[in-house]
Amino acid sequence: MSAPHPVIEYWFDFGSNYSYLSTLRIEQAAQLAGVSVRWRPFLLGPVFRELGWSTSPFVLQKEKGEYTWQDMARQCRKYGLPWRRPSRFPRPAVLPTLVALAGSGTHWVGGFCRLMMHLNFAEDRDIDSAGTVAEVLTAMDLPVASLLEDAQSADNRARLREQTVLARARGIFGAPTFFVGKEMFWGNDRLDDALAACREPASFSP
Amino acid sequence: MSAPHPVIEYWFDFGSNYSYLSTLRIEQAAQLAGVSVRWRPFLLGPVFRELGWSTSPFVLQKEKGEYTWQDMARQCRKYGLPWRRPSRFPRPAVLPTLVALAGSGTHWVGGFCRLMMHLNFAEDRDIDSAGTVAEVLTAMDLPVASLLEDAQSADNRARLREQTVLARARGIFGAPTFFVGKEMFWGNDRLDDALAACREPASFSP
Repeated sequence: MSAPHPVIEYWFDFGSNYSYLSTLRIEQAAQLAGVSVRWRPFLLGPVFRELGWSTSPFVLQKEKGEYTWQDMARQCRKYGLPWRRPSRFPRPAVLPTLVALAGSGTHWVGGFCRLMMHLNFAEDRDIDSAGTVAEVLTAMDLPVASLLEDAQSADNRARLREQTVLARARGIFGAPTFFVGKEMFWGNDRLDDALAACREPASFSP
Repeated sequence: MSAPHPVIEYWFDFGSNYSYLSTLRIEQAAQLAGVSVRWRPFLLGPVFRELGWSTSPFVLQKEKGEYTWQDMARQCRKYGLPWRRPSRFPRPAVLPTLVALAGSGTHWVGGFCRLMMHLNFAEDRDIDSAGTVAEVLTAMDLPVASLLEDAQSADNRARLREQTVLARARGIFGAPTFFVGKEMFWGNDRLDDALAACREPASFSP
């Protein structure tokens, strides 16, 4: 009766604070809902620039930005997640994004993304260096050298640029963004709705 | 032990689509939580202009605007509320705002606000006319002439202008916005969190 393989597409950026919340939540929530996650790391910066914004709206709009940090502290308390306001925001994360993209179909992608997010939003560490990424991959007992090489290959870099094009084509204007079939859900606040939509047969019509 | 009189301050605008959701939800949700609602109708337009925006971000940002209408349809389905996308957005509503402001401490304010919101977001009707407001007040069996007179008095108009000043001073940048003590919560998605905060004694410290 129900769709055999419900899938949620998860578009996120390592510098995005609300992506921190959903990256830490999504795998467990999806598992409970019987849904699999398709990890879609991308860079929000180029998307913002194409929309005419020089950086995050939380930086451009002072009032909204100040509120966001209060909201984050409360949301992290609600979800039981550690939180430390990053001293640099939004943090660049090209290399972690390339690694997550190269590993997006693997068993380790979720764990890798959670650890990188933890460094940014719970430990206030810069994350866009080979040293930091290698530290995380080593802790996960993964082959550091070959993964860093694959991640930085011309092919994978081209794939990351394509992610920006795809994001724009699909109407993405922020992160996190979830897709269930063609239906778009924006923001960590919509994760539960998106997972619920995975179970509605209508969502899987072409 | 707990605070004797938990109160949620509810700042909303009759033209704001997400205010439609919380206006229809708040009184019942607050009652279940043992919280009373302090109605704070205001005009978002002047606040947006002071922030440098000529109109709603949903109009200024095409991608976000298009998403918003999909999201509204889904949210209304989730909450069991009727929905029809307004042909005019954001709809002017100075007179309903004046009436709600004049009646903000009365027993009928919640019912009045729900009916006005219903006209805008479920019946796609213009709401900023004495005829329409009178229709609603009549349906509620309220003294139309005296309420319209009070609402449009110089005192009440001055009070509405003060609402804009207060909104800016408190850091409001959108609607709906809830306050629990000094803590601000933005968006219909935070209504439940704000009501939960009403029950935390810490929220009531000066």
